[in-house]
Amino acid sequence: MSTTLTNGHVLHPDGSVSRADVRFEQSTGEIEAVGQGLAADRTLSAAGGLVMPGLVNAHTHAAMTLLRGYADDKPLDAWLSEDIWPAESALEPADVRAGTELALLEMIRSGTTAFADMYFHMDEVVAAVERAGLRARLAHGIVTVGKDEEAATADLQEGIDFARRADGEAKGRVQTAISPHSLTTVDESTLREAIQAARELGVPVHLHANETTEEVEPIVEERGVRPLAYGSELGLFDSQDFFAHGVHLDETELELLADRQPSVVHCPASNMKLASGMAPVEALLDAGVPLALGTDGAASNNDLDMFDEMRDAALLGKLAADDASAVPAEAVIEMATAGGARALGLPGGQVTPGAAADLIVVDFEAPRMTPVHDHVSHLVYAAQGSDVRHTIVDGTVLMRDRDVLPLDEQAVRETAQTRAERLADRA
Amino acid sequence: MSTTLTNGHVLHPDGSVSRADVRFEQSTGEIEAVGQGLAADRTLSAAGGLVMPGLVNAHTHAAMTLLRGYADDKPLDAWLSEDIWPAESALEPADVRAGTELALLEMIRSGTTAFADMYFHMDEVVAAVERAGLRARLAHGIVTVGKDEEAATADLQEGIDFARRADGEAKGRVQTAISPHSLTTVDESTLREAIQAARELGVPVHLHANETTEEVEPIVEERGVRPLAYGSELGLFDSQDFFAHGVHLDETELELLADRQPSVVHCPASNMKLASGMAPVEALLDAGVPLALGTDGAASNNDLDMFDEMRDAALLGKLAADDASAVPAEAVIEMATAGGARALGLPGGQVTPGAAADLIVVDFEAPRMTPVHDHVSHLVYAAQGSDVRHTIVDGTVLMRDRDVLPLDEQAVRETAQTRAERLADRA
Ligand SMILES: [Zn+2]
Ligand SMILES: [Zn+2]
Repeated sequence: MSTTLTNGHVLHPDGSVSRADVRFEQSTGEIEAVGQGLAADRTLSAAGGLVMPGLVNAHTHAAMTLLRGYADDKPLDAWLSEDIWPAESALEPADVRAGTELALLEMIRSGTTAFADMYFHMDEVVAAVERAGLRARLAHGIVTVGKDEEAATADLQEGIDFARRADGEAKGRVQTAISPHSLTTVDESTLREAIQAARELGVPVHLHANETTEEVEPIVEERGVRPLAYGSELGLFDSQDFFAHGVHLDETELELLADRQPSVVHCPASNMKLASGMAPVEALLDAGVPLALGTDGAASNNDLDMFDEMRDAALLGKLAADDASAVPAEAVIEMATAGGARALGLPGGQVTPGAAADLIVVDFEAPRMTPVHDHVSHLVYAAQGSDVRHTIVDGTVLMRDRDVLPLDEQAVRETAQTRAERLADRA
Repeated sequence: MSTTLTNGHVLHPDGSVSRADVRFEQSTGEIEAVGQGLAADRTLSAAGGLVMPGLVNAHTHAAMTLLRGYADDKPLDAWLSEDIWPAESALEPADVRAGTELALLEMIRSGTTAFADMYFHMDEVVAAVERAGLRARLAHGIVTVGKDEEAATADLQEGIDFARRADGEAKGRVQTAISPHSLTTVDESTLREAIQAARELGVPVHLHANETTEEVEPIVEERGVRPLAYGSELGLFDSQDFFAHGVHLDETELELLADRQPSVVHCPASNMKLASGMAPVEALLDAGVPLALGTDGAASNNDLDMFDEMRDAALLGKLAADDASAVPAEAVIEMATAGGARALGLPGGQVTPGAAADLIVVDFEAPRMTPVHDHVSHLVYAAQGSDVRHTIVDGTVLMRDRDVLPLDEQAVRETAQTRAERLADRA
């Protein structure tokens, strides 16, 4: 079945905006045409709106929505050891399912069509993605610090097994990765084995790197090299790999990134909320390092709204560069769309014939979006997730006029609330 | 006529939240009771929501909504001289009316019940406030730099005349201030005369101060003292005065503020977008300086959503203090409600019997607001202006179930779009 998004404006791959219709086909999952007067089996109104690529949340821990607002405004160490880790250790598979479904509901409602997740009980995440209709790059997060050898080995094995068994699930909408949690929470030999497994499976490595000075300094002290040099020595940072944060980077690391072309996933809200620091986004752009954007988990954000994240990236990028012209709106949209698709190695990210029909229609009719001098500016500086009218993934409409079709909103919300309360009692 | 907000939770002045009804009376404009089962002439549902004080936008230039997205991502100097000043010099009274009505529509829809404005053609702002039903502290912005003596004198006179003629308009909902634009854009003798006039009229002084290093350094170089010491010498910083930004403050200035108790209006989004710097909000809180929150004009934000501003204040405050426990959610809500009312010298800011019935009901039913572990956290880290269900000012309902009653939304939006396009053509 073909559908035409009618009477709207379109954000083109070159960043320009013009009036045009967009036709896509459900059976192929592709955009067929962008132009005027495109006949189709049915139409969906984009009047007063803008058709753009769906947003890509390139780093999150979806099920952490259950811990949204559970503990805030605490020093990082106490927050992790007193609140987050105890709660996570009490998480059951059904909690991960409930939290992930809540996350996917929120993503669909705020225009996110693809995401990268690193967590545990990941088969529940696959099932949720299958049902909700999004695209995802999923990995079991491997951690060895604080574990005995047997438990560490089992965790690595689960990371590898999951990457093998889930790749290609949900009609190919689910792809996998290998995710050692970070260079400091996984021991060197496990890191080597995990990376080796990723290469054999042909999947990317997705990890946290250079998020805080507390994480950078021990590596520099113990090994005498910067974290990314250590990672590179381990075989990391192929162009298909992607890592979250990259807040604290020195010149040699910028060069390494520019040379090797892995993607860096900027997470501005999390970096501010946890007082991690300011990533050198303008310098990364200048160096030609591929960039994407992520919300990180809901406990450090506290929502999964990529419009918030785009605004945060533009605002924080200017502050970090001490330059009001740094990290302009076009660059941020690129990070949140084509850059995200590139980072995750998934289709989507452009409104052009032949590309995946992962599309959203953003309403420009709120007073907040008036007047319209410049659509691109409004997307970054004024739009909110609640302005998204329709969400389409792989040619299938997941939200039509704010009505989410694959999920029962009320049931998802109630299950999440119940599960979150039980979790808080147990933790 | 009395109205009870039923079946919701209430945010109390001490920051606690409990289930309660709130009854207010239109004729007195006051909250009558907070408790269980309060009979009234009519009810308004707060089920699934939270009743809280209306938000106070303590520093903005409302009509700048016409320039929303008109020019972004430019260095500050070029942005002002090439875009903003030419556009502003072409502004006609009808533009200010249209831009302000758009701003007030946006404020009502995002839960702002009072604001401080500094702009020109201010009688248009009074008329818009009268019609829209908000509360405001209004001032004609006095600028003398680049003007001949006659024009400078006329500008001062208009500042004084407006403060006299408009104070108490709109049944007392409009109060006035004297607003020399800043310590660098107004010459010393005009500053002295303006401040003297404010004291005679008994109205506060509202100005910009210590926003950028480019503004601080010339004062230090020319006068050998910090800007706030210069301002204090001129008679500024009575406890009723309030000034925007306070980004670059040294120890002596913090002490002066703690001693004299003017309010500082923090504008985090504008400070990031213009790369002005990070205000020392945690230090100001520690020093006991009265704080409020503002969006600044829409051209440097780009919306007037105080929920965005609360989130920005909490996130940036932690980053600036290098401490994830700094500027907690409760402190930010205080800044945006009671702190704002205190800064502006206007009623409101607390849900308690006898206080002004300036109230909003925030919906907690979005997936983004699920689960609810902590209402206060969600208000700051997850809520958006579009979650506001009802907005009430002075006992009158301005928005009921997202329907804005005093303004014709469609007409306001269309007029603003037309006026903005004409302005862009002229500028
Ligand atoms: Zn993470
Ligand atoms: Zn201002």
